[in-house]
Amino acid sequence: MTADVVPLPRRRPTLDPMLALTAHGMNAVNAVILERMQSDIPLIPRLAGHLISGGGKRLRPMLTLAGAELVGYQGARHHKLAAAVEFIHTATLLHDDVVDGSELRRGKAAANIIFGNPATVLVGDFLFSRAFELMTEDGSLKVLKILSGASAIIAEGEVSQLTAQRQIETSEERYLQIIGAKTAALFAAASRIGAVVAECGEREEQALDDYGRNLGVAFQLVDDAIDYDSDAAEMGKDQGDDFREGKMTLPVIFAYARGTPEERKFWQAAIAGHRTSDDDLAEAIALIGKYDAVEATRDRARHFAARAVDAISIFPDGKARAAMAEAAHFAVARGY
Amino acid sequence: MTADVVPLPRRRPTLDPMLALTAHGMNAVNAVILERMQSDIPLIPRLAGHLISGGGKRLRPMLTLAGAELVGYQGARHHKLAAAVEFIHTATLLHDDVVDGSELRRGKAAANIIFGNPATVLVGDFLFSRAFELMTEDGSLKVLKILSGASAIIAEGEVSQLTAQRQIETSEERYLQIIGAKTAALFAAASRIGAVVAECGEREEQALDDYGRNLGVAFQLVDDAIDYDSDAAEMGKDQGDDFREGKMTLPVIFAYARGTPEERKFWQAAIAGHRTSDDDLAEAIALIGKYDAVEATRDRARHFAARAVDAISIFPDGKARAAMAEAAHFAVARGY
Repeated sequence: MTADVVPLPRRRPTLDPMLALTAHGMNAVNAVILERMQSDIPLIPRLAGHLISGGGKRLRPMLTLAGAELVGYQGARHHKLAAAVEFIHTATLLHDDVVDGSELRRGKAAANIIFGNPATVLVGDFLFSRAFELMTEDGSLKVLKILSGASAIIAEGEVSQLTAQRQIETSEERYLQIIGAKTAALFAAASRIGAVVAECGEREEQALDDYGRNLGVAFQLVDDAIDYDSDAAEMGKDQGDDFREGKMTLPVIFAYARGTPEERKFWQAAIAGHRTSDDDLAEAIALIGKYDAVEATRDRARHFAARAVDAISIFPDGKARAAMAEAAHFAVARGY
Repeated sequence: MTADVVPLPRRRPTLDPMLALTAHGMNAVNAVILERMQSDIPLIPRLAGHLISGGGKRLRPMLTLAGAELVGYQGARHHKLAAAVEFIHTATLLHDDVVDGSELRRGKAAANIIFGNPATVLVGDFLFSRAFELMTEDGSLKVLKILSGASAIIAEGEVSQLTAQRQIETSEERYLQIIGAKTAALFAAASRIGAVVAECGEREEQALDDYGRNLGVAFQLVDDAIDYDSDAAEMGKDQGDDFREGKMTLPVIFAYARGTPEERKFWQAAIAGHRTSDDDLAEAIALIGKYDAVEATRDRARHFAARAVDAISIFPDGKARAAMAEAAHFAVARGY
C-alpha cells in the first residue's frame, strides 16, 4: 500500500447504521428464512442451515428493507421478498461452491465438503424453488419479473465467468460485465424491490436499482482485491482461491497489464494453472503489490460506491439515506 | 418374463395418437424453447441444446397441450407454459447428471461429460430461471404457484432419493414417495396447467392432476424396471446405472424381499457399493429375473396407468381422451 491513497472518511465507515436501520425488519425476515428452509427431508434444513446460520451478513435482504425504509413503506410485504432474495443468494453460493470446488466459505468448511456435491446442488435447487414460492405468495408479478430476470442474469454471469476462467486476455470491460451480472444484478433487484412494494414510481425504483447495482460492483471489486491483499484483515474465504482457480479478477488484470514481459509469463503460466503453490501465490501477491493493483482495484470500487451514493441523492436526507451511503463507503473500506 | 402376464391390449399401444394430438401445438412450444434458451453467452445455448435437441420425447409439455385440448381450450397461453415445464425438466436432468455422475443420457454422452460439472450446474440454473421468466410473462399467479410448488417438491424428492441411496432397507412405500415427488409432481403440474389456462374449474384441474401424477409414477416404475430388464429393447440410459449407483428401485426392493438369505447378502453388498462389476450386474439381473421382479414392477405400473386413465373418465370421450389413455398404456408397454 502506498502513502498517496485517497483518504478514508475521518470516522471509519461501518455497516452499523445499516444494521440498526434494518434490525427490526431483519428479525421478521430471519423468521421467514428459518420457517421456509424447513422440509420433511431432514438433510435439507441441515445443509441449508449450515450456510444460512453460518454468519453471512444478509446484506441483500437488508438492501430490500433499507430501500423500503428510504421510500417510507409502512407494510410488511417486503419481509417475505427479502427472504426470497436471501434464498436466491444462498442457492447461488451453494452452486458456486460446487462449481469452484471450494473448501472454505465464510471461514468454515463449505457445504460441498461436508455434505458432498450432489446434496449441495439439490438443496440449492430447493432454496431456489422456495424463493419463487415466497414471491408467488406475495403475488406481485412485477417482483417476480425483476427476480426471475435477475436470476437468469446471475446464471449467465456465472457461466460467463467460467468461460473467462484461465483466460489471461480477459479485459477489465469483460470482467465488469461478469461481476455486473453475477453479483450486481441481485444487489440491484434486492434494492429495487423496496420501492416496488411501496408502489412509489419508476424514478424511485430506478434510483434504488442504480444504488444496488453500483454497490454490488463495489463489493465484488473489494472482495476480489482482498483475495490478493497481503494486509487484509478480513478474510471470509481462503486467500488465494481466485488465484488457484485461475479466475481473472481486476487485481490480476492490472498486474498483468502493467507487468514486464517476464512477469507476464508468470501470470500466463499461473492463470493457465501451472503455478499453484504457496510460493507462486506469494509471488503473485508480491507482483500485485509492486503495481499497487489492490489499491487500483479499490479505487475503481470507490468510483462505483460514489455512484451508489449519488443515485439515492434524489431521496430526502435522513437516517435511511445516511445508512445506505455509509454502507457504500463501508463496502470499499472493508479489509483495511 | 413368464407366460401368465396380464395381456397387453391387442394393438400395441404407442405414443402416436398423443404425438398427432399435440403436433401443431408442439411446433409453437418448440419455437419458444429454441428462442428462450438463447443467450449472449454462447456456452449456454450450446450446452442446453445438447440436451434439448437430444431426442427427448418432450412428454411433459405434451401433457400440458393434451390437457388443454381435453378441456377445449382455444387460446395460446399454454405454449409458453409448456416450454417452461420443459425447461424445469431439462434443468432437473442436467443437475441429475451431475448428481449421479452419469456418463450417458438418452444414449449420448451426458452434458456433464462433455461440458463438465460446473457449466452443467450453471446452465441448469439458467434454464430454471428462464422457466420462471416465461411463467411470469404469462402472468398467472395460479400457474406460478403450481410450478414453484412442484419445483420445490421435485428438489425434495431428489434429496430424499439421495438419502435413500445405498440403503437396502428402503421400502416400497418410501420408494413410491420418492418417485411421487421427483417425477410425478411435474407430470401432475404439467397436466393440471392445461385446465388452469382454460379456467374450467377445480374438478377438471384435479382430474388432470391425478392423470399426470399416476402417469408419472407409471413412467418412472417402467424406467426403473427397464434398467434391469434383460429383454429391454429401448434403453435410453446405460443399463445398470441404478445398480452401480446403489439406487433402491422397485425391482431391487422386490428381489431383496423375495430372496434367500444368501441372495440378500449379495444385494446388501451390491447396494452398499461392493459389487459393481459386469458380472455382478449380470447376477443382479438374473436374481431379478428369478423373482419376476421386472414384471412385478410393471404390474404396479399397470395399476397406476389404470388410475391415470380412470381419472380422465369425467371428460367426454373423444380424440384427446383416447390419446391420453393410450399414452398411459404406452407408458407401461415401453421396453417390451
